[in-house]
Amino acid sequence: MADLKTDSIFLKNLRGEPTERTPIWVMRQAGRYLPEYMAVREKLSFNELCRTPEAACEVTLQPIRRFGFDAAIMFSDILTPLAPMGAAFDFSQGGPKLEKPIRTEEEIGALHTYDPEEGTDFVAAAIKLMKENLGDKTPLIGFAGSPFTLATYLIEGGGSADFATLKAMLYTRPDLLDDLMTKLTDQTLAYLRMQIAAGVDAVQLFDTWGGILHPADYARVVLPCVKRILDGLKETGVPRIYFLKGSAPYLDLVTTLDVEALGLDWTMDITGTLPRVKDFAVQGNLDPLALFGTHDEIRRRALEICKAGTAARGHVFNLGHGITPPTPIAAVETLVETVQGFRR
Amino acid sequence: MADLKTDSIFLKNLRGEPTERTPIWVMRQAGRYLPEYMAVREKLSFNELCRTPEAACEVTLQPIRRFGFDAAIMFSDILTPLAPMGAAFDFSQGGPKLEKPIRTEEEIGALHTYDPEEGTDFVAAAIKLMKENLGDKTPLIGFAGSPFTLATYLIEGGGSADFATLKAMLYTRPDLLDDLMTKLTDQTLAYLRMQIAAGVDAVQLFDTWGGILHPADYARVVLPCVKRILDGLKETGVPRIYFLKGSAPYLDLVTTLDVEALGLDWTMDITGTLPRVKDFAVQGNLDPLALFGTHDEIRRRALEICKAGTAARGHVFNLGHGITPPTPIAAVETLVETVQGFRR
Repeated sequence: MADLKTDSIFLKNLRGEPTERTPIWVMRQAGRYLPEYMAVREKLSFNELCRTPEAACEVTLQPIRRFGFDAAIMFSDILTPLAPMGAAFDFSQGGPKLEKPIRTEEEIGALHTYDPEEGTDFVAAAIKLMKENLGDKTPLIGFAGSPFTLATYLIEGGGSADFATLKAMLYTRPDLLDDLMTKLTDQTLAYLRMQIAAGVDAVQLFDTWGGILHPADYARVVLPCVKRILDGLKETGVPRIYFLKGSAPYLDLVTTLDVEALGLDWTMDITGTLPRVKDFAVQGNLDPLALFGTHDEIRRRALEICKAGTAARGHVFNLGHGITPPTPIAAVETLVETVQGFRR
Repeated sequence: MADLKTDSIFLKNLRGEPTERTPIWVMRQAGRYLPEYMAVREKLSFNELCRTPEAACEVTLQPIRRFGFDAAIMFSDILTPLAPMGAAFDFSQGGPKLEKPIRTEEEIGALHTYDPEEGTDFVAAAIKLMKENLGDKTPLIGFAGSPFTLATYLIEGGGSADFATLKAMLYTRPDLLDDLMTKLTDQTLAYLRMQIAAGVDAVQLFDTWGGILHPADYARVVLPCVKRILDGLKETGVPRIYFLKGSAPYLDLVTTLDVEALGLDWTMDITGTLPRVKDFAVQGNLDPLALFGTHDEIRRRALEICKAGTAARGHVFNLGHGITPPTPIAAVETLVETVQGFRR
């Protein structure tokens, strides 16, 4: 019988162990570019899908069946664990919207902390289903949004172009932002521990909006919370990936973290970055929009990244950000064939 | 009589000459946060304002009168010189919109190149008026958008969240993008030469969207065009500033340019960056949203940047991006007092 822990090239790369080929998965691989995903979404809203274990399991498996990715990522949303805190986002109008943004001391104080086994029991149930269905071949990635990224959504009440409200808080009431970050850090750590207890084989912390700050603010506000979460998961032995979009200005700070792998977005040159991240496996980093290129161009760029990755402590191929909904299926097929066909 | 060239602390810092205090101007200082600007806009549309020398002169002078900034920047828009090419943007609906985006070989071929003394005679006339009114005390900055940033607007037909159309062109028909870039580079070089002939004392090349690419693409597509413009202006002796937003991943490429000063956005730590930019004056880099902070916080952050800047070859204080419309006037007053009160 195959043993996931020892045979998965995804997990081996995260741990810095040699493998013959480069594993691949892509961020948002269970998503709107897949017709079979859209078929499920015809019956269930985004929110219902996140909260229904059987359906979440189904869409998690879809890209594995179709493309044979080397890892599955549980279908969910980074904002899902905020609902039991008292901040349920509405996804029905395009981007996520919070009816009443969290901005005052009272609003932050009123956010509940909860036991993830109860408040997000449907996530635990979904992970167990996914693990049963994935069997011993494909590892499952759990994930959470970083406290800072979650804070941007809570404070702005949704997406934002310039994060003016969060920044006004940072520059006038940093103590309030710290209170919110502390609460989110506690909850996120508990949430990821629950996912690991339920069976995920690796976890990724998504920091989509960590890169909007001066490095001194990143160091004071964001980094300690990320560190507390990553350190709090270390004893589990489950490999941890930290993906900070736009991490170039903070690379010397990020590399102080005790973490197995760093995600790199598509603006980072892997070869040029490697001397600064030599103690980490790297994950990335093709521009998601390169999948709109010719198939020759997709192959050329994917192979360049695979080759650059051979010099890293470990390399998991991925896009530099989430795959976009209109991406052609054939482009993903070419990408997966190319990466899985590459031999180190 | 004062001599601008020798007495301006702004120009001295760009040239790396010692000055007792740190000069300050802020990007978009002539703009919507000023009630006197809004009063002018009640009578003229944005486009009319850009094309009417007397009015453009008036709004250019407004922030100098009110705050005593150490440099004026001519009021215009980076898209203004595209209209005589046959790509007139409509500014009446919020963001700039181009009725018919430029995407095909025919559309690129149909873009005119023109003599800026004629096609943008109103810019030349405005500069002459501004210089007369500014006298020998305050230098005037001319500017242009970088060819790549202009290309994003032409190809996308306006602003964009992910630049999907431009990137599809880059990944399928890079030759087309190159043709467009060549045309824009020729035109931008001529446009800036015209501004210098009309009397501007320094020029800034704005590369708002140069930072959306992999460094290899930045190096192949963006950098040679920026280099050709900067090199083409060198013989004028007028100091040149290159501002690339999100420049961290490309810093080793940007520093190959022959240019007097590099603009740094607010995500860059000046002190940490200095060893890599020691041959350049630096400009920046307070977060524009820090102006929503307490006045103590504005002072603290401004002074930190001033102090860090003393170790640079030259330092011009600025925001890390354009000032935002709802910025309180009192915050700008505190900022200017703080920076102008700082002694090196």
